[in-house]
Amino acid sequence: MSGLGSGFKRLTDVETAINKFLMYVKPVEDIEEVSLKDLAGRVLAEDVVSPIDVPNFNRSAMDGYAVLSSDVVSASMDNPVRLKLVGRSTTSQPFKGELHPGEAVRIDTGAIMPDNADAVVMVEYASESGGYVDIFKNVGKYDNVSLKGEDIKEGEIVAPKGRLITPHDLMALASLNLSKFKVFRKVRIGIAAFGSELVDSDSAPEGKIREVNRVFFSRALEDYPVEIRDYGILEDDVELIRDFLMKSSMENDLTVSFGGTSLGQGDLVRDAVERVGDIIIHGVALQPSKPVLLALVNDKPYIGLPGYPVAVAISTDVFVYPVVKRLAGIHGVYIPRVVRGMLTRRVPSKVGLKHYVRVKIKVRDEIYVEPVYASGAGITSSLSMADGYLVIDEGKEGYEEGEEVDVMLFRRFLEDV
Amino acid sequence: MSGLGSGFKRLTDVETAINKFLMYVKPVEDIEEVSLKDLAGRVLAEDVVSPIDVPNFNRSAMDGYAVLSSDVVSASMDNPVRLKLVGRSTTSQPFKGELHPGEAVRIDTGAIMPDNADAVVMVEYASESGGYVDIFKNVGKYDNVSLKGEDIKEGEIVAPKGRLITPHDLMALASLNLSKFKVFRKVRIGIAAFGSELVDSDSAPEGKIREVNRVFFSRALEDYPVEIRDYGILEDDVELIRDFLMKSSMENDLTVSFGGTSLGQGDLVRDAVERVGDIIIHGVALQPSKPVLLALVNDKPYIGLPGYPVAVAISTDVFVYPVVKRLAGIHGVYIPRVVRGMLTRRVPSKVGLKHYVRVKIKVRDEIYVEPVYASGAGITSSLSMADGYLVIDEGKEGYEEGEEVDVMLFRRFLEDV
Repeated sequence: MSGLGSGFKRLTDVETAINKFLMYVKPVEDIEEVSLKDLAGRVLAEDVVSPIDVPNFNRSAMDGYAVLSSDVVSASMDNPVRLKLVGRSTTSQPFKGELHPGEAVRIDTGAIMPDNADAVVMVEYASESGGYVDIFKNVGKYDNVSLKGEDIKEGEIVAPKGRLITPHDLMALASLNLSKFKVFRKVRIGIAAFGSELVDSDSAPEGKIREVNRVFFSRALEDYPVEIRDYGILEDDVELIRDFLMKSSMENDLTVSFGGTSLGQGDLVRDAVERVGDIIIHGVALQPSKPVLLALVNDKPYIGLPGYPVAVAISTDVFVYPVVKRLAGIHGVYIPRVVRGMLTRRVPSKVGLKHYVRVKIKVRDEIYVEPVYASGAGITSSLSMADGYLVIDEGKEGYEEGEEVDVMLFRRFLEDV
Repeated sequence: MSGLGSGFKRLTDVETAINKFLMYVKPVEDIEEVSLKDLAGRVLAEDVVSPIDVPNFNRSAMDGYAVLSSDVVSASMDNPVRLKLVGRSTTSQPFKGELHPGEAVRIDTGAIMPDNADAVVMVEYASESGGYVDIFKNVGKYDNVSLKGEDIKEGEIVAPKGRLITPHDLMALASLNLSKFKVFRKVRIGIAAFGSELVDSDSAPEGKIREVNRVFFSRALEDYPVEIRDYGILEDDVELIRDFLMKSSMENDLTVSFGGTSLGQGDLVRDAVERVGDIIIHGVALQPSKPVLLALVNDKPYIGLPGYPVAVAISTDVFVYPVVKRLAGIHGVYIPRVVRGMLTRRVPSKVGLKHYVRVKIKVRDEIYVEPVYASGAGITSSLSMADGYLVIDEGKEGYEEGEEVDVMLFRRFLEDV
């Protein structure tokens, strides 16, 4: 009998649980090709190597006059150098031909440099009249010129395998003249909610509860390259659950369910899994969210989350994201949005359990962190009232009033400022 | 003539520019109704007030036995109290009838409490046999019971007007028996790229440049409730640009363009705007991204961004996000993802300009911040090589090697760890 009130004989600490489980999780290796417009949010399956120099010609970095820098060495405000204007180079109509000593070409930003020209004098240091241009400032070789290959050189790695492509990456990737990029297939996730009390309708009749974890989950995974298949709500029936686990594990890379993982007569998930798979972990030292079940069915990962919405939100953070990251082939370490502030009151915790305390940020003369609720996983309003989590590690006995703590935000906008 | 090398007579500092412009930006007031599944990512147009108590009945918070707490006051491991088992309450089949002294009902987590029962003894502190159950632990009134209204009370504000709904908010909002939620209409943004040198094809012919700012922009705005209408690439023609500005400002809440805002013969945006609208700001003290134009056309905000991809990325952050936030009716202060680390080398900056320096994070024994490039807005690879921006305020003369600085990330995963 556990003193932790969950009925589990032993709770595995969170880090051990996730690390042990991750050893069984193999990245999806299927590769597909997408075009630039579908690349953001996908994970590169190979280094993207530039097949060309970018820019692939010398071009002007400014609006001005293309010159031979040797012509304007002595140019100054008091002693301008007069050059003959022999043409114009725009992005739509480049100047054809080469520049000779004593000549200049009017040039737009981005336009190809005439042959021989090696610098651009900015328009504000020049004055044009009657087929000539007076240059009021000297320029050095390659001043105001974007050189061929200056941005990216042929053969250079522009983005590495395993990168989750951001919109910012598109900027460089667009200039490579590549029409397709190799990415890993999206991670397929099968989800279902277990519970005879659950309904999908807007208004639940008395005694019934509206199922919301599937909607939450689908939206909470939107930042990852996933494809979610919803198998709906299943009655509390071991055969139904077993069939779902078999079907989903064959059709998907990961299966996630909500509900039915705590210990009790009505909780059939463990029984169902034992018939078709191997349980790796059941019961984790995470408060609130102890009854997490990590298993393999058909050699595919299966994560059984508890049914309480608050526990689902927290264990999605703790268990689902790392598993999806691994399956998706994303390299690197996730960096959460963090705010540091001063606790407005003491937050007790139980040593041996990792706690996720819902807190609200209040910005006054300084930043305050206010615990929303000490109470359980059933209090969904603790999420809508909070801005993020204060995570208390297993080894700590809570935090004192006035202590400075880091809060992991789940909102991008703080309202109480 | 400006000493800042941009040709602008005067550059407005970033904060002044954005604050002045925001005074002209009126939030979209149109309201529409969406169901719960479409609510995440939208902005509430009114406080959501609960029409009911949640839960709307007393229910068990544990698997165990519903009892009268007065019956088990003396229960202990050594002296269990024996109660008569009179039924079972599950989520699918609630126990009908009331509990009398000396009686207990087997109850599942989430199931309705029998009338009169005021506490639940957890299954691990009880032992069932022959129609009776021995209770080994006393419980207080309402122990392990979720009381009616415990989560949310009728009349309570569950989420305030102006909130950008996160998946976490759905948890509480789902329990309110509401089928529709009032939200502000999505912000309509019309975009176009200006430049005769631009093409949309995968591989640009020599002298032409692939247009990428529109793809970037569409993806970079995905975290906001927007609807983007793409008006394509426009030739450098003042009439075309003017017509676009008129059309887009009539069809959208905001117009954003890329290119054509710097000073020079080929740059026609200012001329076009002057014919159909009012320029509020032209030229900002932002490096790199000085040639930003903020204007009103048909009383609608228009943001003319420079054409260089790096400048577009940075000025989207600085100017577009705050304007879209205002238009969308989002309350609160945006919190970026930040990492603090030590500069690997000196970063100079010009006083009077706000600098956005692209930096890479390297995690070794400690966290290092490495400037990627000192150079210009044309270097798109500075974005793909970087993890975020080091922002240097106008008043500062750069940072020294070894200084601790905050980096605003544009990636969620750091690769070099």
